[in-house]
Amino acid sequence: MKSVETLSWTDNGCLKMIDQTLLPTELREIDCRTVETVWEAIQMLRVRGAPAIGLAAAYGVCVGLQSLGPNPTEKALFERLDEVVKFLASSRPTAVNLFWALDRMKAKAESLRKATPPEILNALFEEAKAIHEEDRTICRAIGEHGQTLTKDGGSYLTHCNAGGLATADYGTALAVFFAAAEAGKNIHVFADETRPLLQGARLTAWELQQREIDVTVICDSMAALVMRQGKVDAVFVGADRITANGDTANKIGTYGVAVAAAAHNIPFYVAAPLSTFDLTLESGDLIPIEERDPADVSCGFGKQTAPDGVRIYNPAFDVTPATLITGMITERGIICPVNRETVVRCVGTPSDGRGKL
Amino acid sequence: MKSVETLSWTDNGCLKMIDQTLLPTELREIDCRTVETVWEAIQMLRVRGAPAIGLAAAYGVCVGLQSLGPNPTEKALFERLDEVVKFLASSRPTAVNLFWALDRMKAKAESLRKATPPEILNALFEEAKAIHEEDRTICRAIGEHGQTLTKDGGSYLTHCNAGGLATADYGTALAVFFAAAEAGKNIHVFADETRPLLQGARLTAWELQQREIDVTVICDSMAALVMRQGKVDAVFVGADRITANGDTANKIGTYGVAVAAAAHNIPFYVAAPLSTFDLTLESGDLIPIEERDPADVSCGFGKQTAPDGVRIYNPAFDVTPATLITGMITERGIICPVNRETVVRCVGTPSDGRGKL
Repeated sequence: MKSVETLSWTDNGCLKMIDQTLLPTELREIDCRTVETVWEAIQMLRVRGAPAIGLAAAYGVCVGLQSLGPNPTEKALFERLDEVVKFLASSRPTAVNLFWALDRMKAKAESLRKATPPEILNALFEEAKAIHEEDRTICRAIGEHGQTLTKDGGSYLTHCNAGGLATADYGTALAVFFAAAEAGKNIHVFADETRPLLQGARLTAWELQQREIDVTVICDSMAALVMRQGKVDAVFVGADRITANGDTANKIGTYGVAVAAAAHNIPFYVAAPLSTFDLTLESGDLIPIEERDPADVSCGFGKQTAPDGVRIYNPAFDVTPATLITGMITERGIICPVNRETVVRCVGTPSDGRGKL
Repeated sequence: MKSVETLSWTDNGCLKMIDQTLLPTELREIDCRTVETVWEAIQMLRVRGAPAIGLAAAYGVCVGLQSLGPNPTEKALFERLDEVVKFLASSRPTAVNLFWALDRMKAKAESLRKATPPEILNALFEEAKAIHEEDRTICRAIGEHGQTLTKDGGSYLTHCNAGGLATADYGTALAVFFAAAEAGKNIHVFADETRPLLQGARLTAWELQQREIDVTVICDSMAALVMRQGKVDAVFVGADRITANGDTANKIGTYGVAVAAAAHNIPFYVAAPLSTFDLTLESGDLIPIEERDPADVSCGFGKQTAPDGVRIYNPAFDVTPATLITGMITERGIICPVNRETVVRCVGTPSDGRGKL
């Protein structure tokens, strides 16, 4: 079992997180003492995974407010809060949990306009801790609901990393496997390596190994083959943003896995907390897709693997249409079938305060 | 344009070939003076691509016979020939062209039982050169037939490398693009990087760049996305072995591309010479699939990317069923639709001497 936490707040008031870019060969934590280091950690994927990004942003707000000292004026506090929130929101464009967490922190401060600045600062810190604690509870609930979809002796496939490293400590898609194992089921998992940044080979394989779950790493291009060989009973993946109709943005390659699963009649499940739903967007066409550095593809392994000057397309996410998704596992239960009606029934509407940016 | 050849026979009697493991950052040729170095070059993928492997094996027979000197006894010659052929046949299990070329060399020698050993040695060398020359002619014909399936302004996708580097000098799937460009069509090609060994990013991108064809490298997991975006008019890939019913073994990942193409109603073509057909096998289930070193996946490019001790599955090929293949482009024309009847009509039967191991 992992003995360090994805993110934690230290006694001396700084945000500590595992530098996930160094895994699986090195387990090193970094201290974030400025909002710039938090921004950099999110942007450079030292912390990644939609829920963990939200958490980092919430604590990042607290880190950013520290520059004011313990007793700022109200004006200075709200100005700085605005600045910090805008800055952190610019770190990653696709994961809605980032905006959700920042919004929640801002709303908390706004609700305390009559309190003293030290009280507001304290309340914001408590809010970040609450998000952290809720994330643990939510992931356990996702695991419990999801594991009912697994069976003893089952073999599953996942893409990217939707594990403890992507959340406070238990994960979303991987929570399903952890909960299945805790329920005494003997399962096997194929982990797509997940090019270009190999979160599957580096992080998912490591997490499953830590929890002694039988795991086999494959290249992304092998997923269709192992499905054809009858070795995959279901696919479980996480999500970065889910729209009102159930369309799901997740790590690049998820869509291809969903297409292959459909072609082999294999159930395809998305596991995600309600904070991942963005009901302000009707469908996946409206989700902004982040493009990242071409060098992730051409020089990803410490060696140049494409010729100089060649054009590279490097979208970080793709969108899987709801029609390819068998069910969605949330902390409130499983949405199945997946469509606008069932999503809104489970998640609520923007006017309930859900998914509002 | 490339100024060096994939393989060539030097004036001082050795087999020279580009070490493809060093591309695209280094263009270096290696000299093979013993059959062991030829075997190693095939096994280590310094030379790869089904037709080029066949060529290397044919010349490899000549290299292997050199140890006999210019005037061996007939007995010594045939014993050594047998030994060399068996040894080279053990270098790679999937590409049928390897066995086809070795068989052809052996049959040539057998047909000359009444000639003197120097005459036989000379005839074998001429046979290797004939295979080389035929390969050029065949690839041009494949390109000509295949380019009729392209259009000006078209955008295509390919997987792995079925280019000049996989053949004598023009390729099979890439021959289609080269011929289209030579016919004045302005085309664009997506090159799947092709994990684990990145032949697409390293070799296909390099070849297309050399010939000034507009190319974009993508990760394998992005192929389904660019198809969904409407950016792919057709897929062209090579083949390592094609069975009587049209099932096709090709680089791992090809099957997933075919599944995605079918899901998007995009034509999927296989370009291959007749020497790739193995009519002794009724269907793809019977093709032996080579598994390669797990380290190709976990430490592919000088950096460890999966945790110590994790299980890795690394099949080098997969089989695409004929039902997913729109057409097959051979030197004799296009087979469409693809089924046992159309394949046998174009290729012949094992009793014609085709595809016989």
